[in-house]
Amino acid sequence: MDIPAVPTKVDPGALTAVLDGRWAGLRREVRAQMAAEDFSDPANLDIEAHRAQVLENLRRLARTDQPGLGFDVAYGGGNDVGGSVTSFEMLGFGDLSLMVKAGVQWGLFGGAVQLLGTERHHEKYLRGIMDLSTLGCFAMTEHGHGSDVQNLHTTATYDPAAREFVVHSPDSGATKEYIGNAARDGRLAVVFAQLVTGGESRGVHAFLVPIRDADGTPAPGVTIEDCGRKAGLNGVDNGRLTFDRVRVPREALLNRFGDVAEDGAYSSPIESDGRRFFTMLGTLIRGRVSVGGSAGNATKRALALAIRYGEQRRQFKRPDGDEVVILDYLGHQRKLLPALAKTYALHFAQEELVSKLHDIPSDASEEEQRELEARAAGLKAFNTWHATRTIQAAREACGGAGYLSENLLAGLKADTDVFTTFEGDNTVLLQLVAKGLLTQYKEYFEDLSPLATARFVAEQLVGAVLERTAARQVVERLTESDDGDVLFDREWQQKLFEDREEHVLEGVANRLRKAADDPFGVFNAAQDHVLRAGRVHVDRLVLDAFARAVSSCEDAEAKALLERVCDLYALSAIEEDRAWFLEHGRLTASRSKAVTAAVNGLCAELRPHARALVDAFAIPEQFLAAPMLLG
Amino acid sequence: MDIPAVPTKVDPGALTAVLDGRWAGLRREVRAQMAAEDFSDPANLDIEAHRAQVLENLRRLARTDQPGLGFDVAYGGGNDVGGSVTSFEMLGFGDLSLMVKAGVQWGLFGGAVQLLGTERHHEKYLRGIMDLSTLGCFAMTEHGHGSDVQNLHTTATYDPAAREFVVHSPDSGATKEYIGNAARDGRLAVVFAQLVTGGESRGVHAFLVPIRDADGTPAPGVTIEDCGRKAGLNGVDNGRLTFDRVRVPREALLNRFGDVAEDGAYSSPIESDGRRFFTMLGTLIRGRVSVGGSAGNATKRALALAIRYGEQRRQFKRPDGDEVVILDYLGHQRKLLPALAKTYALHFAQEELVSKLHDIPSDASEEEQRELEARAAGLKAFNTWHATRTIQAAREACGGAGYLSENLLAGLKADTDVFTTFEGDNTVLLQLVAKGLLTQYKEYFEDLSPLATARFVAEQLVGAVLERTAARQVVERLTESDDGDVLFDREWQQKLFEDREEHVLEGVANRLRKAADDPFGVFNAAQDHVLRAGRVHVDRLVLDAFARAVSSCEDAEAKALLERVCDLYALSAIEEDRAWFLEHGRLTASRSKAVTAAVNGLCAELRPHARALVDAFAIPEQFLAAPMLLG
Repeated sequence: MDIPAVPTKVDPGALTAVLDGRWAGLRREVRAQMAAEDFSDPANLDIEAHRAQVLENLRRLARTDQPGLGFDVAYGGGNDVGGSVTSFEMLGFGDLSLMVKAGVQWGLFGGAVQLLGTERHHEKYLRGIMDLSTLGCFAMTEHGHGSDVQNLHTTATYDPAAREFVVHSPDSGATKEYIGNAARDGRLAVVFAQLVTGGESRGVHAFLVPIRDADGTPAPGVTIEDCGRKAGLNGVDNGRLTFDRVRVPREALLNRFGDVAEDGAYSSPIESDGRRFFTMLGTLIRGRVSVGGSAGNATKRALALAIRYGEQRRQFKRPDGDEVVILDYLGHQRKLLPALAKTYALHFAQEELVSKLHDIPSDASEEEQRELEARAAGLKAFNTWHATRTIQAAREACGGAGYLSENLLAGLKADTDVFTTFEGDNTVLLQLVAKGLLTQYKEYFEDLSPLATARFVAEQLVGAVLERTAARQVVERLTESDDGDVLFDREWQQKLFEDREEHVLEGVANRLRKAADDPFGVFNAAQDHVLRAGRVHVDRLVLDAFARAVSSCEDAEAKALLERVCDLYALSAIEEDRAWFLEHGRLTASRSKAVTAAVNGLCAELRPHARALVDAFAIPEQFLAAPMLLG
Repeated sequence: MDIPAVPTKVDPGALTAVLDGRWAGLRREVRAQMAAEDFSDPANLDIEAHRAQVLENLRRLARTDQPGLGFDVAYGGGNDVGGSVTSFEMLGFGDLSLMVKAGVQWGLFGGAVQLLGTERHHEKYLRGIMDLSTLGCFAMTEHGHGSDVQNLHTTATYDPAAREFVVHSPDSGATKEYIGNAARDGRLAVVFAQLVTGGESRGVHAFLVPIRDADGTPAPGVTIEDCGRKAGLNGVDNGRLTFDRVRVPREALLNRFGDVAEDGAYSSPIESDGRRFFTMLGTLIRGRVSVGGSAGNATKRALALAIRYGEQRRQFKRPDGDEVVILDYLGHQRKLLPALAKTYALHFAQEELVSKLHDIPSDASEEEQRELEARAAGLKAFNTWHATRTIQAAREACGGAGYLSENLLAGLKADTDVFTTFEGDNTVLLQLVAKGLLTQYKEYFEDLSPLATARFVAEQLVGAVLERTAARQVVERLTESDDGDVLFDREWQQKLFEDREEHVLEGVANRLRKAADDPFGVFNAAQDHVLRAGRVHVDRLVLDAFARAVSSCEDAEAKALLERVCDLYALSAIEEDRAWFLEHGRLTASRSKAVTAAVNGLCAELRPHARALVDAFAIPEQFLAAPMLLG
């Protein structure tokens, strides 16, 4: 095999060009602007001051073109979905409260008005949403229902006499919970509620409900509570909303997917309540995509801090008397470099996802739409778990210095922590991914519940035989070979992932076949396999995306370096799951040990490039201004 | 095999009695007092208010017997080392800032005066330390040297003319860093510095240096900075101390292990500077033991919160229409129950450690002393990493509710985070454990540096053959058997751990044999194996301790339940490392899969007991008063 040597020194700028990808111009623009605006760090602000600062910075953002990118040109927007998501992601380099507040206002609230509403809503609200004259909330999650949003308790009952909807929280579980912009700034909310008309429930729909008047006084019938201090993101004013028979006009219904006539007659282009609901949810994936991407950028920032520190911090002496730079220790490299490689991998997978989101035609097939949603769900889970784990490792890698707020990692940790459970709990999202695979996109999902998964599979998938592709054969052929270099063979790595995915999926399908007898019991006993199916699928997507990015890289030096980074990603992922490969005869014991040795070797080889690899993220320097880096 | 059935219902009180162990009476007393004192939670205090509250609570603690437990009866103490450590551990149930502040004052500062000082210091200071009329600091860590404390830069140069030491920070790296009690409350500090007399350096010694006068004004020549906001523990006033030729009398030297006569002549009962230093450090392990135990109690609190929440939170419907309690999901059990089993395991290992610390005779051999230190180091690393991981899992298991400060997990996460890197960085501590094993306690450690480890092994251990015990044979015999029950055979589990330890150690010794040629390179290439040697050793200690605790349990029902908890601990630890067992032929593929199935089975079996298992910790209810548990 021909493994090109990594050049002695690679220009970070050449790597930046590869990373910046399709929206490179926009990324440069946002970087320049973040640097110029000098959005300061909130480390020493109390909650109220931080909230005020974030609102002020949001207003500064509103004066740029970015908030409009995701909206229609007709209302002053940019009609550039990919650019919009990319600009949210870039905010992940800075104060994450600002990123989340921007996401709530323009992504979730504005996105719902645009994508669930119709012209009458667009005409009336979009400009104000973009320029912040209308601050709003996205009120979906309830106290009693977070993951299981289809079973929300809030009701919106149509009163034909008054031509109004009555929005109501019938029990304490129906209180809208953790709603961004609710505690302080929001004036209007998109409220998700069970639409009832003519005595019949039509499932969850979205309604525009004023929650405060212009002065900030809560609207009649609306009770607002402050969620108070949180682990992080304290610049975002999360609150609780309870509705006591609040009346809104019939036109408050965001009626793209379902409408109520003056007389109360319900109509919808989609017959099934469940299917309609998931179509509505499906239009809202931009938020999930943005959270994943922002988590990725927060991770990059943590790694940049920890690697810079690791390159200058010295501890313990060598035989020649010099103190050793801690990043020269294998143990330290192991903490940071595989995580850095995975950060690259996830970056390229995210870039592909954003491109797919941007390019999906408005008349895309359901399969295409579901595939996109599953990919968004899987990458959100991967990106955010990776963020939690990596930022933790970065903190530990900086010791006591990493614990001081001034050195920025504490804030990054605290702010990103909730990403694994908001915008979809990661565990539930992985189930969603697995479900998509199991049904092979041939059937529509009625709902998200695990039970439904089990029942569905039991009923529909029995007897379905998943085809084996050539992957297994390739894996076996290469596994038999004694060539040590096979570990660095991209085809072998990719086939290994592909083969694992097929095998796991087949196993899950087999396990779930008996689900008709005891749907919950059978599903539950297989839940760890279901989650694994989701994980190994995303693993494959990520490696394939990284491999594609490397092979299309035009700068020879950058490409040679990225080849090794991709090897480190692939081999450390294989190492992490080598028990499975051993159990299933895909790795021999000696090759498994060779994988570990190869990861160590790659750490040593990439060590001299660690700084270039983080510099390539081109994070505005103000976000790396940690006193610990000043010596 | 005879596996006793777990009773339907086990009384948590019976488990509490087992857990409370040797210092049960004291534990009950501290619980009652914590409940009565109503030490309130600091969630909504700003830094200054929190610091004030912690100091006030410290004064309330000072009025109890606990602070004195670790000190000599002659000065009003209790001479009960184990009780003292246990009482610090119990503070781990409450505000961890109070635990750390108490640890700084009575454990580190007071402990140093008692254990490194002599009668003149005891007579003058111990009473004031106990009753808080003398608030103090433990100034060891420097900006430039944290793990490598032997190479501290601060100097204490003896001036025979004035009969004084001149304490000085010669460079910015010598600034004392992260010093608890320094920023606000401390008046006196135990300062670790290189003792210089007659132009000769004698290594690190400890000196009592006043840092503030009674009014709080910094002493002349002492510069004090505040470390500012930290990720957590903001009730502790950490600061930086810099000394500009500060003069203290000759008697300020804590002179138990080394003294300077009026004329400047140095004397010590221990000749080697390195050995003396590590003897001094060795006397100070109580702090490390207390941190490990407090981390364990913080972990218990997080699990109690998450398991209570998991038992009442419902999400998604069963076929019969009822919503499922989330702890009924296998995926959720997997997040919490193996962690709960490990928490039990670590509790019993910690209890053994505290007993050993308590019982070690003052004339203990060096081997005994080193063994105790290694055990303390290993368990501190295990307890604190387990805390970080488990509290994170608990937060995620409570979703958005877990992110709100009012629900307590956010504070637990933030406060415990630094435990993995203070009182000894965990990675360095695991190396210390491995080193102890490699030298088989036959040689004294000159210093802590990895380099010295490698050189030492290269020079001293070449040719040493580690004996194989019968463990391997037992493992093989049982591995060949097809009896599924072998997984639940405690002897098999223990021998599997023992055999792994031997094998890993042998491998490390082999790798390090070539260290003479390139000490740093060889050590560094083997660092992951060295760390693994430390880990698998501690794994064995922990399982053995748990097994002993179970077999000596006298309550039959509690014992039957603990047997299964011990199985879950052992099998989930085996599962986590099954790649190694597969690579080394200790598990067949089918038995490895059976281990995973057994862990799932144990999760299901222990699910009904989860509440009893956390109630058994008998955490005062006020520390579990999370609004999310009120429905």
